[in-house]
Amino acid sequence: MRIVEVGPRDGLQNEADLVPTEVKIGYVERLAAAGLKQIEVTSFVSPKWVPQLADAAEVLAGLKLPDDVVVSVLVPNQKGLELALKAGVKRVAVFTAASETFARKNLNRSIAETLADYRGVVRAALDAGLSVRGYVSTCFVCPFEGPVAPEAVVQVTADLLEMGVDEVSLGDTIGVAVPPQIRTTVGAVLKAAPAERLALHLHDTWATALANVWAGLELGITCYDSSAGGLGGCPYAPGAAGNLATEDLVNFLERSGYPTGVDLARLAEASRYLAGHLGRTLPSRVLGRIGA
Amino acid sequence: MRIVEVGPRDGLQNEADLVPTEVKIGYVERLAAAGLKQIEVTSFVSPKWVPQLADAAEVLAGLKLPDDVVVSVLVPNQKGLELALKAGVKRVAVFTAASETFARKNLNRSIAETLADYRGVVRAALDAGLSVRGYVSTCFVCPFEGPVAPEAVVQVTADLLEMGVDEVSLGDTIGVAVPPQIRTTVGAVLKAAPAERLALHLHDTWATALANVWAGLELGITCYDSSAGGLGGCPYAPGAAGNLATEDLVNFLERSGYPTGVDLARLAEASRYLAGHLGRTLPSRVLGRIGA
Repeated sequence: MRIVEVGPRDGLQNEADLVPTEVKIGYVERLAAAGLKQIEVTSFVSPKWVPQLADAAEVLAGLKLPDDVVVSVLVPNQKGLELALKAGVKRVAVFTAASETFARKNLNRSIAETLADYRGVVRAALDAGLSVRGYVSTCFVCPFEGPVAPEAVVQVTADLLEMGVDEVSLGDTIGVAVPPQIRTTVGAVLKAAPAERLALHLHDTWATALANVWAGLELGITCYDSSAGGLGGCPYAPGAAGNLATEDLVNFLERSGYPTGVDLARLAEASRYLAGHLGRTLPSRVLGRIGA
Repeated sequence: MRIVEVGPRDGLQNEADLVPTEVKIGYVERLAAAGLKQIEVTSFVSPKWVPQLADAAEVLAGLKLPDDVVVSVLVPNQKGLELALKAGVKRVAVFTAASETFARKNLNRSIAETLADYRGVVRAALDAGLSVRGYVSTCFVCPFEGPVAPEAVVQVTADLLEMGVDEVSLGDTIGVAVPPQIRTTVGAVLKAAPAERLALHLHDTWATALANVWAGLELGITCYDSSAGGLGGCPYAPGAAGNLATEDLVNFLERSGYPTGVDLARLAEASRYLAGHLGRTLPSRVLGRIGA
């Protein structure tokens, strides 16, 4: 079972107090030491939008990671891609939404406009030898529109795959989805895309994330995004709080018979290292249970 | 979907500081006001074992509840049943385990001895016009023995039903079960007992309880035990902490299309009323999100 660790990007982007660059580097290196093989390290969005990640290039330059760890960075546009190329990353991620209102409020464009903009970005990334991941926000429920039509998720997923994205991560951005919605929407997407091209990006706002993972496993989904300690949320989505914690996911998958390759004790060290710098505890239930 | 609220018994029995009788009464009355229709109010175990519940008779005498609320009390033996009869309750519960080591350490008898002892208690209860619920601890994993054989759970469930218990609640006492175990063990039990005679009693120690509820729903289980606020655990089981929170369960069921009849805001009032007296917050994630 694959885990994409998104704490350093999706988690940290919600932290108001700037975390020093060397702490971010120490955090990512500890995540890799715990056995995580795919880590979204940072984002080349404008520092005006996300000041926390303004040191993206410095973090990437300072990292010492094992060769088999795949680093990805979020890029919103051609300029972000150029910075990512300059930083030498091999994998980038683009992001859009399945809900028009969320896209307009979060990305300042329609869904179609984001896809049109990304077409050139993805092409350029592929031409430069990079691989590209795609995120789709609000696949199940939009904080502004309510339930999202599965057809909208199917369409944007198909569009992303068609332009050369190799994996689409379907996001429950505000963490209110429940298994029947996972089944309906992901089931619909699976008619247009193979399971191995899909990931689930769940938030645990209402304690439903692992139930949704189970629903995903039943559908054959083999990749899950999570954030060490449960750090994170979405700064632009009212009510969003807390990515699914990597500790909770690892424990759940391992006990359910799906090896992850992640060492829980070392993962907890990574989370506690960051929590110590943030000066607060992180919400992962499993983190709270395993020995300090 | 039926919910059996066990906070006043399974939750409170773990609280070291004695809660005043009038607070317990206020707590139970608020739980009923939130729409909970089945409440396990207390236990007639020896006050030496559980000093917190030594005021069982006083709590029951002081309660003013709507007529459609079914109150149950835990009784460990004939003496407990006599006290329950004297208190005028209409429903009692007996408890055993699926793991021998747990039974010996927790109940000071073998499983067979507990069942032999209960045969007379259940007979007397039924003769007096009461109904009887049965709890089976450690149905999935024993803190001393590890994984528990499904056959053991099938046997003890069949024995309890055969002696006249109308519902058997299958307990994940230390909260480490995952959906594959729910599927295997409950699936085995369902070959010997109809779904409407079974309940799941889950703990959320490792954040897996709602995933296990989903696995139970898929098997046709329609009754779930939970504790308002997530109060509770098992004082005799190392590592056990936190019943599945009723708030988390209600939100999950309602969003999944299973009406519960419970008003979440009023339920939160009941949990906060008790939390105020305990002087600490309760672990339910949903409780932490809904307006105070």
